[in-house]
Amino acid sequence: MFNRRIYLDYASLTPIDKRVMKEMKKYSSSAYANASSWYKEGVAAKKALNEARKKVAGYIHANSADEIIFTSGGTEANNMAILGSIEWLHEQGVEYEAMHVLISAIEHSSVRECANHLNDKGVQIDTVNVKSNGIVDLDDLRKKILPNTAMVSIMAVNNEIGSIQPIREIAKIIRQSRAKNLQAKAGVTSIFNFQSEIKYPLFHTDAAQGLLLDLNVEQLGVDFLTLDGSKVYGPRGIGALYHRHHIPLAPIIYGGGQENGLRSGTENIAGIMGFAKALELVHANRYRENARLASLRAYFVSELKLINKDITVNGDLETSSTHIANISIPGIDSEFFVLQLDARGIACSTKSSCLRDESESFVLKAIGANSKTSIRFSFGRNTKISQIKKTIRVIGELLRAK
Amino acid sequence: MFNRRIYLDYASLTPIDKRVMKEMKKYSSSAYANASSWYKEGVAAKKALNEARKKVAGYIHANSADEIIFTSGGTEANNMAILGSIEWLHEQGVEYEAMHVLISAIEHSSVRECANHLNDKGVQIDTVNVKSNGIVDLDDLRKKILPNTAMVSIMAVNNEIGSIQPIREIAKIIRQSRAKNLQAKAGVTSIFNFQSEIKYPLFHTDAAQGLLLDLNVEQLGVDFLTLDGSKVYGPRGIGALYHRHHIPLAPIIYGGGQENGLRSGTENIAGIMGFAKALELVHANRYRENARLASLRAYFVSELKLINKDITVNGDLETSSTHIANISIPGIDSEFFVLQLDARGIACSTKSSCLRDESESFVLKAIGANSKTSIRFSFGRNTKISQIKKTIRVIGELLRAK
Repeated sequence: MFNRRIYLDYASLTPIDKRVMKEMKKYSSSAYANASSWYKEGVAAKKALNEARKKVAGYIHANSADEIIFTSGGTEANNMAILGSIEWLHEQGVEYEAMHVLISAIEHSSVRECANHLNDKGVQIDTVNVKSNGIVDLDDLRKKILPNTAMVSIMAVNNEIGSIQPIREIAKIIRQSRAKNLQAKAGVTSIFNFQSEIKYPLFHTDAAQGLLLDLNVEQLGVDFLTLDGSKVYGPRGIGALYHRHHIPLAPIIYGGGQENGLRSGTENIAGIMGFAKALELVHANRYRENARLASLRAYFVSELKLINKDITVNGDLETSSTHIANISIPGIDSEFFVLQLDARGIACSTKSSCLRDESESFVLKAIGANSKTSIRFSFGRNTKISQIKKTIRVIGELLRAK
Repeated sequence: MFNRRIYLDYASLTPIDKRVMKEMKKYSSSAYANASSWYKEGVAAKKALNEARKKVAGYIHANSADEIIFTSGGTEANNMAILGSIEWLHEQGVEYEAMHVLISAIEHSSVRECANHLNDKGVQIDTVNVKSNGIVDLDDLRKKILPNTAMVSIMAVNNEIGSIQPIREIAKIIRQSRAKNLQAKAGVTSIFNFQSEIKYPLFHTDAAQGLLLDLNVEQLGVDFLTLDGSKVYGPRGIGALYHRHHIPLAPIIYGGGQENGLRSGTENIAGIMGFAKALELVHANRYRENARLASLRAYFVSELKLINKDITVNGDLETSSTHIANISIPGIDSEFFVLQLDARGIACSTKSSCLRDESESFVLKAIGANSKTSIRFSFGRNTKISQIKKTIRVIGELLRAK
């Protein structure tokens, strides 16, 4: 084990599982051709694609396999749900200026930038506050849902501090406001009254970091849910959007009409099969892995506090996913500290990798934490107690050397 | 070789080269993390990404590596170029209704559907006719370019009949119309006169089927060029858009600002490295492969004519890419014939795999060919003379058994 690197940045990217690689290799063979072709190899590809779709649907307890749209990753899935829903409404004649979209203050940049883009087009955007524990303030949500709110997008698990959002409670609040919207219809005040079947606001959750949760779309009550291969020990460049039946959506990419007309482009069969396999493996091991990481993380945090009692956790361990510990170490410069840890063989990060270098973490800002002293450690399948011990030792040494 | 399948549908999907698989495996290791990360594994990923970008830029003789945007495939690249260019103009205040876009009558569905989508938004769309040989009618192009033409999109090589389009001549015609637009500016009649640096119409070419051409973006004179991994023995779910410096473009996917802000989403390092490797291999072998396929195809066609002298080639072998032969066999039902060939171990197709089952080939219609009797055979790296001979034998038997 001597001289081996310690990777503690699973929230940024998970290594690809060997069994996933094997699955990808199998489906890269010439026995699987273009899934739109009629001959044997095309039929085999189509069959594989259907199996993967069923597997992914099963993973999130979707009613039907065709509620799964394969995408090029979580970012695209988030874009599809948010931009596609609003664009569909716009195509029905609803003005951008008439619509309202709500996101939380700590969404991933792929949700945040979609909202900014819509704002540029004229859509009203509001952000729901989070409390200091990193959990969405439900009272603030209730206040901010408007009769013209077309979409609420709130992530399942935050990527920087790991806070698990109360998706079921949020869905309940959204359902209540839909009921109000339906009542308002009688007085023809709703901008959605051309669409009798559909109830607005729609609810999207980015569950890219939700690999340790039991993601049940029926129980969660979401209309859209985002999954990402690169966060579940799967291939990169593959993700999926759960898209509840009969919820209207405009595509963002046009062409051959693959994925039920919603996502054109030749299907990446090997990637999709690898992704489905990765989710299967995550599912099989979830409870054990959750318990194991909870224990590793508790040890990590308690040992750090022994080094310096003023070391604190950003957010709340009780209500955050066990694979993330965002730690504030008083007196350090977090960017320099990450480089020092790197030099000592430990990989971790100061913030989301999807933030430009110059940008401060808006997540930490939203919960009132100090991003200058904060480091995200994130754990996963290959994280061992020996690695945690070494990391604690190195942090202690670095702090004493200051 | 007995009982082995004969794959003659390379225009639909090329098998992944073993050396590409090896490259992908190498870059799937945990030594390569998120390219946005600061630690060793992130830096290694970033370095690999830069190398791949240089390689792809070199392949098409681009001036600079940062003119390459990696995408999830050819379809997305086509969408980026066309929708992104028009959307950027719209964001500057140009009304959709004021703009005009020209495509050829035989573009891939990913270009065609982008045009349809823009048309739904109000953009005027015209299609340039092709002659019976499958080549764009340059006189028709000259006539149809208008002062408000914002974009011309004409493919390098057609995916169904293989016709190679005269991209340099088309670029010349476009340059002439730009000059006219600049003159018109003096009279403030151009819709583009807010943008003094940029010359409209922009020119995009989908070169997904151009693997046997020498793609030199400077000589071709294009502003955008699309490449696709799945057509060059590379990974699926990866492509690239060449995007000439200083040509303004709006993203179609928003988020972490990867790919110079133009294509957000965690980079698929393994896929990108595999794609770059695939292009390198295509490049190294291009001339020999071109000559080899030309000879195989000539033999195939001449032998078919011996079976029935009324068998004809759709388009023109002289001016089409050597990997495609679209053949009309009088009296057959092409869909049934493809299934019969499949049953005898031969994979080929009636049309583009990116057309819905119910759709007739608009390419064959455009050149006045009969799609009911036409079959596309496409050849590639693993196509051997023995396979061609067997295919001819089987076709002969099937026709005699009718």
